[in-house]
Amino acid sequence: MTDFTKTRAMFDIPEGMIYLNGNSLGPMPKAAPDAMMGFLNDEWRTELIKGWNTKNWFMQTNTLGDRIGRLIGAGAGTTVVGDTLSIKVFQAVASGLALVPDRKVILSDNGNFPTDLYMVEGLMNLKDAGYELRIPDPEDVLAGINDDVAVVMVTEVDYRTGRKHDMKAIIDKAHAHGAVVVWDLAHSAGAIPVDVTGTDADFAVGCTYKFLNAGPGAPAFIYVAPRLIDVVQPALSGWFAHEAPFAFDTDFRPMPGKIERMRIGTPSIASFSLLSAALDVWDDVDMNDLRARSIELAELFIREVEARCPGVVLAGPRDPHERGSHVSFRFEHGYPCMQALIAAGVIGDFRAPDIMRFGITPLFIDENDILKAAETLAEILKKEIWKEERFQVRSKVT
Amino acid sequence: MTDFTKTRAMFDIPEGMIYLNGNSLGPMPKAAPDAMMGFLNDEWRTELIKGWNTKNWFMQTNTLGDRIGRLIGAGAGTTVVGDTLSIKVFQAVASGLALVPDRKVILSDNGNFPTDLYMVEGLMNLKDAGYELRIPDPEDVLAGINDDVAVVMVTEVDYRTGRKHDMKAIIDKAHAHGAVVVWDLAHSAGAIPVDVTGTDADFAVGCTYKFLNAGPGAPAFIYVAPRLIDVVQPALSGWFAHEAPFAFDTDFRPMPGKIERMRIGTPSIASFSLLSAALDVWDDVDMNDLRARSIELAELFIREVEARCPGVVLAGPRDPHERGSHVSFRFEHGYPCMQALIAAGVIGDFRAPDIMRFGITPLFIDENDILKAAETLAEILKKEIWKEERFQVRSKVT
Repeated sequence: MTDFTKTRAMFDIPEGMIYLNGNSLGPMPKAAPDAMMGFLNDEWRTELIKGWNTKNWFMQTNTLGDRIGRLIGAGAGTTVVGDTLSIKVFQAVASGLALVPDRKVILSDNGNFPTDLYMVEGLMNLKDAGYELRIPDPEDVLAGINDDVAVVMVTEVDYRTGRKHDMKAIIDKAHAHGAVVVWDLAHSAGAIPVDVTGTDADFAVGCTYKFLNAGPGAPAFIYVAPRLIDVVQPALSGWFAHEAPFAFDTDFRPMPGKIERMRIGTPSIASFSLLSAALDVWDDVDMNDLRARSIELAELFIREVEARCPGVVLAGPRDPHERGSHVSFRFEHGYPCMQALIAAGVIGDFRAPDIMRFGITPLFIDENDILKAAETLAEILKKEIWKEERFQVRSKVT
Repeated sequence: MTDFTKTRAMFDIPEGMIYLNGNSLGPMPKAAPDAMMGFLNDEWRTELIKGWNTKNWFMQTNTLGDRIGRLIGAGAGTTVVGDTLSIKVFQAVASGLALVPDRKVILSDNGNFPTDLYMVEGLMNLKDAGYELRIPDPEDVLAGINDDVAVVMVTEVDYRTGRKHDMKAIIDKAHAHGAVVVWDLAHSAGAIPVDVTGTDADFAVGCTYKFLNAGPGAPAFIYVAPRLIDVVQPALSGWFAHEAPFAFDTDFRPMPGKIERMRIGTPSIASFSLLSAALDVWDDVDMNDLRARSIELAELFIREVEARCPGVVLAGPRDPHERGSHVSFRFEHGYPCMQALIAAGVIGDFRAPDIMRFGITPLFIDENDILKAAETLAEILKKEIWKEERFQVRSKVT
């Protein structure tokens, strides 16, 4: 059994704070500063340019990718880290379209995180006329898969409500119709068990700053099915994807048979040191244990909130197996209520128009946190603390 | 006058090392570890998600961009940082092509850094048929500009020989023919005076890990001429470029009239803390002083090498005003000779087939370093130290 007391002790969370926003930005692992100091003082400072060889900077994209791979059911050599999730979405969808050149439809849904849709819009502007992005309601994605569709691009877990797509069903139907699937794991990696191999996913992409706790703007990752690695042409073909980057040829030749071909430009090695420390926390974590614990804590939270907080209504699925690892509630005065919660040390976030969102992250959240959070929310409602003037001001960001 | 004794004291270079590779990876500024610790302990750890507002994470793309802007002659609000240089090249060229939709030719040169060419290859694969990348010899770029050309994409300073393009002449002729110019400043920013405003450049891109010393894989930057900022459509249209990223609309609307529209996804904030510390070094540096000093040191190095190192021949221009801030020599046994130099604590690098490359970086290199480096090279040649077995082994990278 995974020891969540041990993982909790590996995070440096401010005294008195209950942090239910690990689904947006994970907290700092205690080992992060030392890992970074090691990189700065013992690698960059002393090795300088030699570090690309002596400290394995050049292949950290792959060693870190393999460690993430373990959490998403990917075999060694199928996942690399680098760039941002927006870039990796673009790369995966563009690569997917090239695999099905006679079709022009990208199918997503209107609950997808907007940057995925924006990147596809930009991609379509670059391509021949005639491409089409379809965004039905999430419930209609499965029915929308047909022989017109080149690429299905969905984020498994809805960033607002936590609703979870049935990826196995989507992939099976897509493949039956000759389409390729790009699976965005932004709210899945480190949140729920994922099996990109067992489901025969084509591409998967994700970020490491949410449930994986590697810091704001930490690198993204991309997985490519082994059967596609030697076939796929990287649309963003940078020198780190080249068969021989230091031959400095003028023609691009993607690294044959290796996931390196999905790398692009020179990645931030500093950010890799934080990611490495963050992944250390996962070494003894079993994703099935984590999922069981996440459901247990989420169900407790829902019970407490529903019992004590009139007017606050569960958003998204009631069945925990149809949710990811965050829980959202609708409340008419959700914005000021969330500001009051934050002021009281319970950190969740708000998504327009009326959603209060809480990340359930067993690595560092336990029953006491959940009970205290529900109690604080109940008090804010009972005493109408959310009506205070100071909680009405909208911030610029998040 | 810029005080280069003061800037030299701001770097943490290993005792006894003469580092002539700041054109590839700059050394660590002494302030970098504290800046990073400040970010980790006082921002990520304590502010967590609130840091996007309270610590200005969301707009560091712009505040850091403005600081780089000062070094390249760009006005405030015209430069943003983020992503890799490969991505920024793609973004600039794709945006440039969209401004000249009736033309299909991208003109570069065969001395350009390969990733720039690779990214354009990938871009052409995404677009309609009929696009063409022309790569004449660098000397023939100016003559190659005609009414067929949509975008001229050149790296000002040749990464091998240091040869410098006349950007003013290229831009003037390109504009006279209705073409757009993408100016890669990888070996210019922090190396030589650049005036993107005075030359009326359209786009400029660059990296911060070379002469700007922000660490391996530090973020790239992009400049867009003020006259284009409200016109240009970012080809890689991520949520950080949206008019209202936190409205979570499904349609992409680029931020009107602002350089934010060239941002893409969530940038690495950790890497920004290193960049900020690295830019502090530049606060009291005048680029004209730096250029004068760079030429002085380079001329000294060439004189010493030519006087003392038979068989080692200057590569690239003799006239210092036609070079950037690195000096290259051809030598038949350049590879083992460079390994012997590195073993002796003089760090340059090698570029096939026979180029030994030395970065001249006045921020932390002085006359004594130059004399010692030339003396070491002379000794390696005289005693034929480069013939030793251990210097023949090729490394995987760099």
